[in-house]
Amino acid sequence: MDQSLIRQFRDTVGNAYVLDSQQERFAYSYDATPLYQAMPDLVIQPGDVEEISAILKLATKHRIPIVSRGAGSNLSGGTVPVEGGIVLHLNRMNQLMEIDTDNLTSTFQPGLVTADLHKAVEAKGLFYPPDPGSMRVSTLGGNVAECAGGMRGLKYGTTKDYVMGVQAVLPDGSIVRFGGKNAKDVAGYDITRLLVGSEGTLAVISEITAKLLPFPESTQTLVAYFRSLVDAARTVSAIIAAKILPSSMEFLDSGTMKVVEDFSHIGLPLDMEAMLLIQQDGAALQVEQDIERIAKLCRTSGAVDVQLAATPEQGDELMTARRAALSALARVRPTTILEDATVPRSKLAEMVDQVTVIAKKYNVEICTFGHAGDGNLHPTCLTDERDKEEIRRVEQAFEEIFHAAIQLGGTVTGEHGVGLAKAKYLELKVGSEGMDLMRRVKQAFDPLGIMNPGKIFAKDARRRVVIGNHEHAH
Amino acid sequence: MDQSLIRQFRDTVGNAYVLDSQQERFAYSYDATPLYQAMPDLVIQPGDVEEISAILKLATKHRIPIVSRGAGSNLSGGTVPVEGGIVLHLNRMNQLMEIDTDNLTSTFQPGLVTADLHKAVEAKGLFYPPDPGSMRVSTLGGNVAECAGGMRGLKYGTTKDYVMGVQAVLPDGSIVRFGGKNAKDVAGYDITRLLVGSEGTLAVISEITAKLLPFPESTQTLVAYFRSLVDAARTVSAIIAAKILPSSMEFLDSGTMKVVEDFSHIGLPLDMEAMLLIQQDGAALQVEQDIERIAKLCRTSGAVDVQLAATPEQGDELMTARRAALSALARVRPTTILEDATVPRSKLAEMVDQVTVIAKKYNVEICTFGHAGDGNLHPTCLTDERDKEEIRRVEQAFEEIFHAAIQLGGTVTGEHGVGLAKAKYLELKVGSEGMDLMRRVKQAFDPLGIMNPGKIFAKDARRRVVIGNHEHAH
Repeated sequence: MDQSLIRQFRDTVGNAYVLDSQQERFAYSYDATPLYQAMPDLVIQPGDVEEISAILKLATKHRIPIVSRGAGSNLSGGTVPVEGGIVLHLNRMNQLMEIDTDNLTSTFQPGLVTADLHKAVEAKGLFYPPDPGSMRVSTLGGNVAECAGGMRGLKYGTTKDYVMGVQAVLPDGSIVRFGGKNAKDVAGYDITRLLVGSEGTLAVISEITAKLLPFPESTQTLVAYFRSLVDAARTVSAIIAAKILPSSMEFLDSGTMKVVEDFSHIGLPLDMEAMLLIQQDGAALQVEQDIERIAKLCRTSGAVDVQLAATPEQGDELMTARRAALSALARVRPTTILEDATVPRSKLAEMVDQVTVIAKKYNVEICTFGHAGDGNLHPTCLTDERDKEEIRRVEQAFEEIFHAAIQLGGTVTGEHGVGLAKAKYLELKVGSEGMDLMRRVKQAFDPLGIMNPGKIFAKDARRRVVIGNHEHAH
Repeated sequence: MDQSLIRQFRDTVGNAYVLDSQQERFAYSYDATPLYQAMPDLVIQPGDVEEISAILKLATKHRIPIVSRGAGSNLSGGTVPVEGGIVLHLNRMNQLMEIDTDNLTSTFQPGLVTADLHKAVEAKGLFYPPDPGSMRVSTLGGNVAECAGGMRGLKYGTTKDYVMGVQAVLPDGSIVRFGGKNAKDVAGYDITRLLVGSEGTLAVISEITAKLLPFPESTQTLVAYFRSLVDAARTVSAIIAAKILPSSMEFLDSGTMKVVEDFSHIGLPLDMEAMLLIQQDGAALQVEQDIERIAKLCRTSGAVDVQLAATPEQGDELMTARRAALSALARVRPTTILEDATVPRSKLAEMVDQVTVIAKKYNVEICTFGHAGDGNLHPTCLTDERDKEEIRRVEQAFEEIFHAAIQLGGTVTGEHGVGLAKAKYLELKVGSEGMDLMRRVKQAFDPLGIMNPGKIFAKDARRRVVIGNHEHAH
């Protein structure tokens, strides 16, 4: 990048917040998604919305790609700067500006870490339900850009169900606001919701107002083990059919259970085909009643063993084991590719079966876990990126998994986003006319195509990019 | 319209479903919004999505405006064909196609009446929460196009929180699908949500998949009367501060109470300044507990009298009285203009006060009722459209009310939509850059501007259109 231009950026945000050494740029050349890497030309850490605006004006003038990011914990290559340009790192804009207990809202900057918001609102007896797996490091700006989900999706929805208002900067530098603290607001198109999940391809989100709920009085956890996958899936359906919506219904297959047990030593039985980890929250009396009914339904649907967590701590331990699934799997082989195929909840057993068949067909190792309650599965492939031949088989297997999900009425991504990793599969879901429409929407925001270029929309020529053998931090 | 073109439409949908007589067209020249009327050139009642597609292809070819509508119960002039063209009446496409009890979804055509969906899903123990005031006649296509709200917004959200997938026809006739039955789905931009509340200006929605919930086990109703408005508003805040989210918290001011009592004779006290009608639903034990706490909070916050409905029937009677507010008010004078100014819940008392001051200033009669729990107020003006001078004062008063709402962090429309009635106020909320962006989004869908032209975006030249003295059916 031209030195006089870099000087203009330095003048805008201050010298310390423009990073251009090889080493610094390398740190922003990848995210939590394996197999993708590309160097940015410059990294900028703006301090406020005016600085973002000034940066975008210059970027527009000089047609420089802008990739905004927080912790880079996404799993779709969403923040890899495949066309170079500027990585806009929003870590300095991490203020929790307000918790409004009258209106049950919170307003914060995009760089705030998800778990920090959880802690702050919970201290006031309030609740921000979205809990993506990476919540200890992920930022809320990233959560909004990707429409992050988590374990509580079934009962509480995902990030899109909580974002009430945004301030955002358009590529030309104009600062816009949509939505706000109003529980009802139909003033024009719902641009707020359109920005949620837009993966940095439309605008830079500079402030967020989110809805909060009262924190549930009580939470209970139950674990059920199954000799057959079909029984586990039947149990999920039976609970829904009984008109109970648990806060979480998590699923682990036998492969994942083995690896998690190896990692956490919490005593998971290794002769089972599947386990469900079910959590209910709400008023104490109600939770008690629900958990009892759930336990009964597990037993009548074929669970071999049902255990109620005796204490909240024991419940937490079980959930922590589930949260450790990805870390545990990541230790087994050099490269871990976590996917996100999602189906309507009723198709869960069929989908897990198909994953097993496809893994066998391509001779690759896939463990499956995920959010059974909302059909959001994470088939996870343990592989080695240095083995080009195996990686080719892995890609073929995932391509077939995506097709299977679509065949079952599902989608190619439930909560990780399209990014680079799923760009070539998006058309499977929305069709060529849907793709054209999305391209026109992109154009309406970003006529020059400088916002996170290469994401969501596949260029046929581009396949999975690099890769050095750097270490990924999962 | 050219006769040979009309013949092509007749060939497409069948003779009986193309209406072109003066009388028939007149019936589609207005909706439930007073003061707006304009004649369409033609009315077409398509029978399926292919017919809609064929009609839109012809409309695109000949640049004919398309105004899709259901019952026309909207209150923003959204379905008045101000630029003529075709009214696409979707009444024949009223099939409830599926209630999927495994995935808790329902799929239906846009012409289905809201209350019919309620009945059908409730028969299976399920629940579709959005309950707009017009739900006995309104259609779900209209609800989606306007993002209809209702009394249950505080706890359950509005239509946008339930639409999971749509099939829609773009102006060029292409048929697209977005979303579906997946509880989590982040495959590309959230076009589904963008279409919700787009007021027929982007596409014709031809099929909807909505999320359902388990029907709550129990419901209880409570009414509280207040000598001061501020006490009523303080009560709303106190309930939220106690971390209770009732399913409804409805507010009536003294003017509305008088008129409702006159109409329904249910024994409302006429010496009170305000009443709150509060409903809670959920598990029986929990509802019992919540209602007791709510009653206590009402008393400690200044309620003069608190009454618990002894039976569900008595509760229904109270809610019916509230639902009758608009009908009751509509009997008082020839013209009733219901507005929709909305503020963050904590600003409720201030907003009601301002309405009173503004009504006095312009010497117009305004009663206020609405959804206190979500700050969604309906200041309702009793007037006479034949009195041009009074109507001018009414318009000035509403203009000032909208400005006041914006000053308080509110919005110009909470649940009725922008349509014609609020078009010139939208910029107050989203700014000129927000307006420009929305125009570009409109262009991305509808480059020729044939979809419901004149709506959402004000043409400065156009004012309220007025009109003969036909009878409005409220």
